[in-house]
Amino acid sequence: MALIVQKYGGSSVADAEKIRNVARRIAQAKAQGNQVVVVASAMGDTTDELIKLAHQVTEQPSQRELDVLLSTGEIVSSTLLAMALRALGNKAISLSGAQAGIRTDATYSQARILKVESERVANELNKGNIVIVAGFQGITGEMDVTTLGRGGSDTTAVALAASLGAEICQIYTDVDGVFTADPRLVPEAQQLSEIGYEEMLELASYGARVVHPRAVELGELFGIPILVASSFTDSPGTLIHGGISMEIRNRVRSIAHDLDVAKITVVGVPDRPGIAAAIFEPLAKADISVDTIVQNTSIENITDLTFTVAKSQLARAMEVMEPIAKSIGARESISDSKLGKVSIIGTGMQNAPGYAARMFRVLSEHGINIQLITTSEIRITCIINDTQVKDAVRALHQAFKLET
Amino acid sequence: MALIVQKYGGSSVADAEKIRNVARRIAQAKAQGNQVVVVASAMGDTTDELIKLAHQVTEQPSQRELDVLLSTGEIVSSTLLAMALRALGNKAISLSGAQAGIRTDATYSQARILKVESERVANELNKGNIVIVAGFQGITGEMDVTTLGRGGSDTTAVALAASLGAEICQIYTDVDGVFTADPRLVPEAQQLSEIGYEEMLELASYGARVVHPRAVELGELFGIPILVASSFTDSPGTLIHGGISMEIRNRVRSIAHDLDVAKITVVGVPDRPGIAAAIFEPLAKADISVDTIVQNTSIENITDLTFTVAKSQLARAMEVMEPIAKSIGARESISDSKLGKVSIIGTGMQNAPGYAARMFRVLSEHGINIQLITTSEIRITCIINDTQVKDAVRALHQAFKLET
Repeated sequence: MALIVQKYGGSSVADAEKIRNVARRIAQAKAQGNQVVVVASAMGDTTDELIKLAHQVTEQPSQRELDVLLSTGEIVSSTLLAMALRALGNKAISLSGAQAGIRTDATYSQARILKVESERVANELNKGNIVIVAGFQGITGEMDVTTLGRGGSDTTAVALAASLGAEICQIYTDVDGVFTADPRLVPEAQQLSEIGYEEMLELASYGARVVHPRAVELGELFGIPILVASSFTDSPGTLIHGGISMEIRNRVRSIAHDLDVAKITVVGVPDRPGIAAAIFEPLAKADISVDTIVQNTSIENITDLTFTVAKSQLARAMEVMEPIAKSIGARESISDSKLGKVSIIGTGMQNAPGYAARMFRVLSEHGINIQLITTSEIRITCIINDTQVKDAVRALHQAFKLET
Repeated sequence: MALIVQKYGGSSVADAEKIRNVARRIAQAKAQGNQVVVVASAMGDTTDELIKLAHQVTEQPSQRELDVLLSTGEIVSSTLLAMALRALGNKAISLSGAQAGIRTDATYSQARILKVESERVANELNKGNIVIVAGFQGITGEMDVTTLGRGGSDTTAVALAASLGAEICQIYTDVDGVFTADPRLVPEAQQLSEIGYEEMLELASYGARVVHPRAVELGELFGIPILVASSFTDSPGTLIHGGISMEIRNRVRSIAHDLDVAKITVVGVPDRPGIAAAIFEPLAKADISVDTIVQNTSIENITDLTFTVAKSQLARAMEVMEPIAKSIGARESISDSKLGKVSIIGTGMQNAPGYAARMFRVLSEHGINIQLITTSEIRITCIINDTQVKDAVRALHQAFKLET
């Protein structure tokens, strides 16, 4: 008898009918002879609605109280799933994050899981129950409720799978799996039947928001295979795991993109120690997430430093930067709000030369100017005009023969 | 420094603005030098909406899961109240029933409080916090969430007050206090500044739904004075306590009524042991609440047995009764669905004759026929036609000089 952990996203449990559908899928997994633990997200837009309610009460809600408030969303969906399963004749029980032993630090709104004390879950499984655990939440040593931040329910699911020694963690969402590129941009995009943890990490960080990187990292750390699939179809999904065969590793696996990119360049920065900190610490304090950072070689001790932020944060970031640029003796700060990002990803690239050159040539052949370039071992990213992202993704998808 | 427990009902915290208003009242109590514990009900219709959601998922929701689901309503309002208090510059923290140590039995949907382990609440008070406790809920020895049923938040408040040794428990609601009769029926009705526990118990059970009888009983048991007042006005409210003066005790205190009364009479019942059980056990199993029961003296070992139920339960109760009436050899069951109830209440009545006679005469002078009579030591109740209840309440209010 295998133990599997399933996670259902908010759109999969958005209303009573969808909850009954999901219950049927869970019941099926149980009927196939598995022990089943289910992690539920909050229904549809519940979390956003609760945040809105909090902001109606006060502009700056206490983080501790906000976490307790938000945690109710996943408790609601968990109880409804348990009810639906019982109505189908299954034994089922819902547990809050606290009851399921998800112990976290006290960093409200983005708590980290310290350990999972899964005895209660194991006991309920042994009683024959399907166990529904409220995702996205945990509890501190002082028994205060925390939430895990973005991707929290994915992380709950993989952490539980690791703690219980599950055979697999299945993440059910509203897409069929991981594709060679976004199917909305590239109709020929192919669904991948499998992908490595590291490739998935690059993908997830770079725009293919199917499963959260935290969960993938945790899966890699504990060797838990993660299946990403749709809760609305019977598509087999994409399996994220560590045992990708040599042949598959040896190529570009997928094209990722992101249309939400704005760029700030600090021009004429005196190149001395502490300059990067002087720029990025105030941005971090202002809660502005900086994505790509590029600093060119300095010439005569003067350099240019460029970084990207989400378009919505550009105005705020420029406000923060103006006085800093002055104080560090930079010439000026300039910005561009109409950018996008396109990446080619594949573990095959790390030992094979020529991928970067081929990418740059393809973009150039399509008249696409490259503004910034960054690379990791298994990813090459170009920042380009946002109006050209669609063309770039299609061209690269074709050039790297991903449609077959 | 006094310790006070305040409870706010659902209509008092129905939206963000009302929550901010309630926060100001709480802050005021704290600013006056008190330690303050607050018990919050769920916002407005939240509980009904959650029940509706559960019934969309399944016709018969599991009680265990329904309790967890419903408990989120009070957690939401508690966190919002804590946020609003912090926004006003107060130290405040919300606690779930479990965190506040409300330990109950495992009778889901109508759990009884076994004890209150109030150490956490006391600790938070000592840190200078206003402590907001989610009402209506508790936790079993197995750490499963329960709800307390009707009047649950009132009961939470009085139980906490008893456990913490509070000076007073203040129940804030949408009425100004306890009146000599329903002010909607009797414009001259007077607000009572004080009332005894027992009188309040008779009142609460007989239609004046201001504070739940369970909470009043608990208040009497532990000697906790209960103030009932409006959260929307500065009316002084009504104090429920045990030290009512002799003079005030010695009269009728108020007129209660109930328009939701239906009657079933089982005619020609052979009067032998076990008959009452044979009738009322099946009704209890069918979850039908029986209110008044009257059995007349039997004549030649044949008696009539009459009882009342809510109008909405009459059809169901008749279904249950038909086969029973046959099996016990009764002649027939007859019903009347258009009844109401009027009561005069006052501890003064128990040692003073003549109140019943005066009540019957007043009703007769107003052409009101009495169908059933039941009495307790401090209450006399007549079942009459529902169309005549309004007249009866007004006539009795005047006759017993309650308007002055």
